[in-house]
Amino acid sequence: MKQHLVSLIILLITFSGSLCLTQTDQPVIKEDFKPATSNQPGKEYPQVNSEGRVRVSISAPEAHQVQLDISAVKYDLTKDENGVWTGESEPQDEGFHYYQLWVDGAAVPDPGSLYFYGASRWGSGIEIPAKDQEFYALKNVPHGQISEHLYFSKSNNSMRRCFVYTPPDYDKDTEKSYPVLYLQHGGGEDETGWPNQGKTNLIMDNLIADGKAKPFIIVMDNGTWRMPGQDRPPRQGERSAGTWPPAGWADGFKKTMLDDIIPMIDANYRTIADQQHRAMAGLSMGGMQTRIITLANPDMFSYVGMFSGGSITMDDVNNSHGFKENVKLLFISYGSRELENGVTRFGGNPKADTEALKNAGINTHYYISPLTAHEWQSWRRSLHEFAQLIFKD
Amino acid sequence: MKQHLVSLIILLITFSGSLCLTQTDQPVIKEDFKPATSNQPGKEYPQVNSEGRVRVSISAPEAHQVQLDISAVKYDLTKDENGVWTGESEPQDEGFHYYQLWVDGAAVPDPGSLYFYGASRWGSGIEIPAKDQEFYALKNVPHGQISEHLYFSKSNNSMRRCFVYTPPDYDKDTEKSYPVLYLQHGGGEDETGWPNQGKTNLIMDNLIADGKAKPFIIVMDNGTWRMPGQDRPPRQGERSAGTWPPAGWADGFKKTMLDDIIPMIDANYRTIADQQHRAMAGLSMGGMQTRIITLANPDMFSYVGMFSGGSITMDDVNNSHGFKENVKLLFISYGSRELENGVTRFGGNPKADTEALKNAGINTHYYISPLTAHEWQSWRRSLHEFAQLIFKD
Repeated sequence: MKQHLVSLIILLITFSGSLCLTQTDQPVIKEDFKPATSNQPGKEYPQVNSEGRVRVSISAPEAHQVQLDISAVKYDLTKDENGVWTGESEPQDEGFHYYQLWVDGAAVPDPGSLYFYGASRWGSGIEIPAKDQEFYALKNVPHGQISEHLYFSKSNNSMRRCFVYTPPDYDKDTEKSYPVLYLQHGGGEDETGWPNQGKTNLIMDNLIADGKAKPFIIVMDNGTWRMPGQDRPPRQGERSAGTWPPAGWADGFKKTMLDDIIPMIDANYRTIADQQHRAMAGLSMGGMQTRIITLANPDMFSYVGMFSGGSITMDDVNNSHGFKENVKLLFISYGSRELENGVTRFGGNPKADTEALKNAGINTHYYISPLTAHEWQSWRRSLHEFAQLIFKD
Repeated sequence: MKQHLVSLIILLITFSGSLCLTQTDQPVIKEDFKPATSNQPGKEYPQVNSEGRVRVSISAPEAHQVQLDISAVKYDLTKDENGVWTGESEPQDEGFHYYQLWVDGAAVPDPGSLYFYGASRWGSGIEIPAKDQEFYALKNVPHGQISEHLYFSKSNNSMRRCFVYTPPDYDKDTEKSYPVLYLQHGGGEDETGWPNQGKTNLIMDNLIADGKAKPFIIVMDNGTWRMPGQDRPPRQGERSAGTWPPAGWADGFKKTMLDDIIPMIDANYRTIADQQHRAMAGLSMGGMQTRIITLANPDMFSYVGMFSGGSITMDDVNNSHGFKENVKLLFISYGSRELENGVTRFGGNPKADTEALKNAGINTHYYISPLTAHEWQSWRRSLHEFAQLIFKD
């Protein structure tokens, strides 16, 4: 009987506890917050706890409302007696997220974080520690370099910039030549995306140190698209009004890629300048650009990667002159949260497309990043997978 | 008579107008503002006019006070009916300035500007067009590269980062070796200062294209100093309490420079690894580090540059074993606004020091940047001058 009473009491406590939680909607927050690894040197905030919650803190003594804005949700902060506002988000996916603060209606970067280019602006970003973060950790292994390369583009009649990753020892053995991967960012991002939040160099340095990837050069250029004849990208309304991406869009960057970027890289770096040793990949918009450019030019690229950027169908392959014959490997990936029953929110079914291509004898790989969405952790993992598959023969 | 009356009226209007100006202290602001060249892509604000005034604008509908904070002065902004705050600063010196916004007591970066590391934080910076800005303009000339170089430092037992400028054609003629300049940032800045706001690569590319400087490698590392045994720089009080810089400070970076940085660079780049082909220079704190390191090691460096970072006296030279015999050139510079009658605010007299050294037969150059203070335009100009003097024989 006593035993039963104890059980009943425990049951009641447990029940009232969970009832309490539901009624007040106040979650118990684990107090193991640490400064984010993406903070500015010496800054205590923002912080992240083991649940993946983000806690921000900012002094704003005269403000009457301060909010944290992350993953499209705004969280109210609370002011203390010193005028410092503090508050937390719900748990976030592992990996990198853009965010900002709102101070009395002004959207501003958090003074504590490092800044990254995305959502068409330089702004705050934060790292949520990931179970697999070792693959992009800074370690004492031989390191390649990321170089800022300025060049004149004839097809744009302007100076342009790209970043170029050269593998460890590139400058030591000056007789050796390397394959090249052209790697593109997404919409609202630029050529700094892969070197900064993408951690491209660390991913490659670690893979090469482990003997899991061949050393190759990676070129990260700016694929930002413009409305035909205009100096700006299409606005939301314009975008949905016609076909997407709009006609003329991909052609501009395709011309830049083929006429300017590739010849410039082949002239300035020790590349193996042929189809067998050239790859293209990209995330989101960069994946769509990869699709259009490689389907139209399978004589130029052997390896094709599309990360959260659509897929390639049998119709695409049948309409391409030489894709099936020349392309050695096609890699399609998504974050698991981007799909529902294998279907994307745009209606595409990348898994079914991939199976069809496999059945037709095309070397196709399909990868799903666990528990991530349309975000950088999906794309870091995709690069990590893709890099191990290419230039192997 | 009518003629006289008209003149009198004009005179009265003019007089009352200028009286008005004096009474209300409202300057006439030239309405020729343009977006700053240091803005984020596509951002309309901040803007600069031909007087060098900075106009900022930010939406903050719920705020009750928004200020622009630049060159240690805060300017109140004015709110319009849409909740957008706008306002201007007094005219600024030509060149680069750090700044920030205050929104109801919160110090935040301006969402319109690019961000730079200085004053111990990533924050807003703005370019005021300068009469001599062509020397650091992006032009269609052969460009060198800035590479991010990660390496393990034994003396710090940690990974470190530097940026390395290699001149145009470095990767084309792989038989050629180059001299090296070690170039240091100031206090509260880091290894990104010279590559970003310093515009090192553009200054060098333009000089080399004009045949005014020899091509050489530039290494930009992190010289941030710590209190002996502590993981932080000294605080204001500590700094003034004893000798400055504090004992032990320079030794830490000197050891890193001599034991780690220079051997790592000589092992990874095609350097001419001898005293005759090695230079060191720095701004402010970096100039003081240059002074201490080169006076102690004149067998290591041939060319010495100190930009707004003190000077070298005859006593210094007499106490150095070999400085007079081995150092080929000493370059001392300041912004004109840093000096009063040739004397710095710390009491030093760099011009007198320089004259004494010249009279003693040491090849010493003294440069004053016109109408600039302790700021980046002084240091860009100093690098531009210094680079034309070194490695010429």
